[in-house]
Amino acid sequence: MLDDIKKIAEKITETVKNDTFGANVRPDYLREAMSDYPLRGGKRLRPALFFWSYELCGGKECAGLEKCAAALEVWHNWTLVHDDIIDEDVMRRNSPTEHISLAKTASEADFDSTLDAEKYGRDMALLCGDLQQGWAVDLLIRGAREAKLVPELILDMVQRMELRANTELISGEALDVELAVKKLENINIKDVMQMIDLKTGALFCCACELGAMASLGYDRGKEFEKISDFALHLGRAFQLQDDILGTFGDLEKLGKDIGSDLRERKPTVLLLKTLECADKESLSTLRGIIGKENISSSDIETARKIMKDSGAYDFVKSEIKYCFDSALNALSFFPENKGRKRLEALIDYLNTREK
Amino acid sequence: MLDDIKKIAEKITETVKNDTFGANVRPDYLREAMSDYPLRGGKRLRPALFFWSYELCGGKECAGLEKCAAALEVWHNWTLVHDDIIDEDVMRRNSPTEHISLAKTASEADFDSTLDAEKYGRDMALLCGDLQQGWAVDLLIRGAREAKLVPELILDMVQRMELRANTELISGEALDVELAVKKLENINIKDVMQMIDLKTGALFCCACELGAMASLGYDRGKEFEKISDFALHLGRAFQLQDDILGTFGDLEKLGKDIGSDLRERKPTVLLLKTLECADKESLSTLRGIIGKENISSSDIETARKIMKDSGAYDFVKSEIKYCFDSALNALSFFPENKGRKRLEALIDYLNTREK
Repeated sequence: MLDDIKKIAEKITETVKNDTFGANVRPDYLREAMSDYPLRGGKRLRPALFFWSYELCGGKECAGLEKCAAALEVWHNWTLVHDDIIDEDVMRRNSPTEHISLAKTASEADFDSTLDAEKYGRDMALLCGDLQQGWAVDLLIRGAREAKLVPELILDMVQRMELRANTELISGEALDVELAVKKLENINIKDVMQMIDLKTGALFCCACELGAMASLGYDRGKEFEKISDFALHLGRAFQLQDDILGTFGDLEKLGKDIGSDLRERKPTVLLLKTLECADKESLSTLRGIIGKENISSSDIETARKIMKDSGAYDFVKSEIKYCFDSALNALSFFPENKGRKRLEALIDYLNTREK
Repeated sequence: MLDDIKKIAEKITETVKNDTFGANVRPDYLREAMSDYPLRGGKRLRPALFFWSYELCGGKECAGLEKCAAALEVWHNWTLVHDDIIDEDVMRRNSPTEHISLAKTASEADFDSTLDAEKYGRDMALLCGDLQQGWAVDLLIRGAREAKLVPELILDMVQRMELRANTELISGEALDVELAVKKLENINIKDVMQMIDLKTGALFCCACELGAMASLGYDRGKEFEKISDFALHLGRAFQLQDDILGTFGDLEKLGKDIGSDLRERKPTVLLLKTLECADKESLSTLRGIIGKENISSSDIETARKIMKDSGAYDFVKSEIKYCFDSALNALSFFPENKGRKRLEALIDYLNTREK
């Protein structure tokens, strides 16, 4: 499984590195910023979903598909660039986020003394994400043309991408931004699940659906429904797991601050369920922890205990299991081919991930 | 001429208003923000360029084209939404800019007391522009399909849009942002002209080229070159005129602050040429005015006089004339049809504009 995904990762890196879409972009540092995130690595889940859904539906290896897969990765990455501006994050995959990195470039250039480098970095990162959105569309079209897909179908694929990865995904992002400023008592679990389906599920669906479309053409019926069902549940499981790892994960393995969800009073399903089920005393203890500027390890221990004792932890764990099972079940519709085996292995892999 | 453009404006407004691309976008205020700028009006120059280039190349009226034209207007508008965030502008077409308007919405909502409404407004406006970029692509595809253009050609049109309106236009925007923080002595007129060609010319070209493609299909030769040449020169003339109006315009007619270019020490061709040609004493006077926080009307008068006396004003005026003449000359390649007459009238109209 890891080997399979490693091969895909290499293909994506090569494709992104050699692509000429942004060759004439000016200034130079903006052009370089365009391929920065996509070359930093990451799980490459979306390209993998694309390739394996393609195989699942019977597609044969052919040139051009690596560009379609890279389109999904570039799309994912532009949303990260804009996300990092919105969240004011400073690190992404062990390096400064794009807006921080571009601010540094500006502060080292021979610009006017009135320069506000931080703002300049944000402005350029904004434009960087804008460029990458177009790059993703162009990559998809070029890849699909190279794969000799029917032009009519390619148009459908672009429109599918605009539906899933533009309107749905960005709605999810917006709902996430909104959830962060809503009063906790005004948020219910359904709202959060909807946000998850849009923010994470939609691009998973897009990757799987484009793979299926590239393979099946217009000859797609129930397969298409099943692959979307698979992707949606995988996305849910993935996101709920993130929430568990955010409080119960291992700092060393996760490489990110445990407890930041609590500090930022992030309205996860885990937290909302705890607030719903914990006893009065625990609730008052928990309310003293969430939103605290300096969360100690003993605070985290206390929060973990309350989340477990209230039954919320088990609730989320069983939701995750249900979602992975549903994803697996959706795959059972397909013949036992290489694509199916890889997607099943992916479920296993994600099920046991610690980061 | 004004009647012709008015009819197009009405079509665009109708098309944008009735389009369903963003129907499921959440939250509601973000969905509404998507069509806000495109419904505020504006000159509708890009849709007009699309329609008239289509006619110029012999295209006949047909359904769907209004969506293609609207795609260009939506594209233009998303760049304005992001532009306004970058420039921290507060007004656009006599109403608050999108990020200001969304900040107001947030401040009136029942959100957490820690809400930073201004930042929230910027974040949502960023996502609004992201949505609109996808909307433009989808509109172009749907329009072209409705117009029954060959799918292969539609793919070419989308790719042309990604080239002109994504990489080129955004590079122009980035260069503009960079010019604003560069030291004046490090900027030359060529840099500014390149920025103009990318920031304004590229989308003008895109509009004209898509019109020509929709009309000519793959049967395009020298026409295509001529229409791009027309658009590029029209863009240059338009932008150089903006610079003249920015200092020499009439406040009442222009509806925007005269002298803001001077206050912001905007490196226009007009200013750079003045710095190049003015005598020492005038230069020192001018340097005392540019960048000043409170520019008085007597400052503006002084600057105008220096710009005229140095010959810079005449230089820019003659450049504008040269560009309009070149645009007109490019049109002379085409038969004297309705499209050509309208584009010629457009040149006249723009040539005498006071806002």
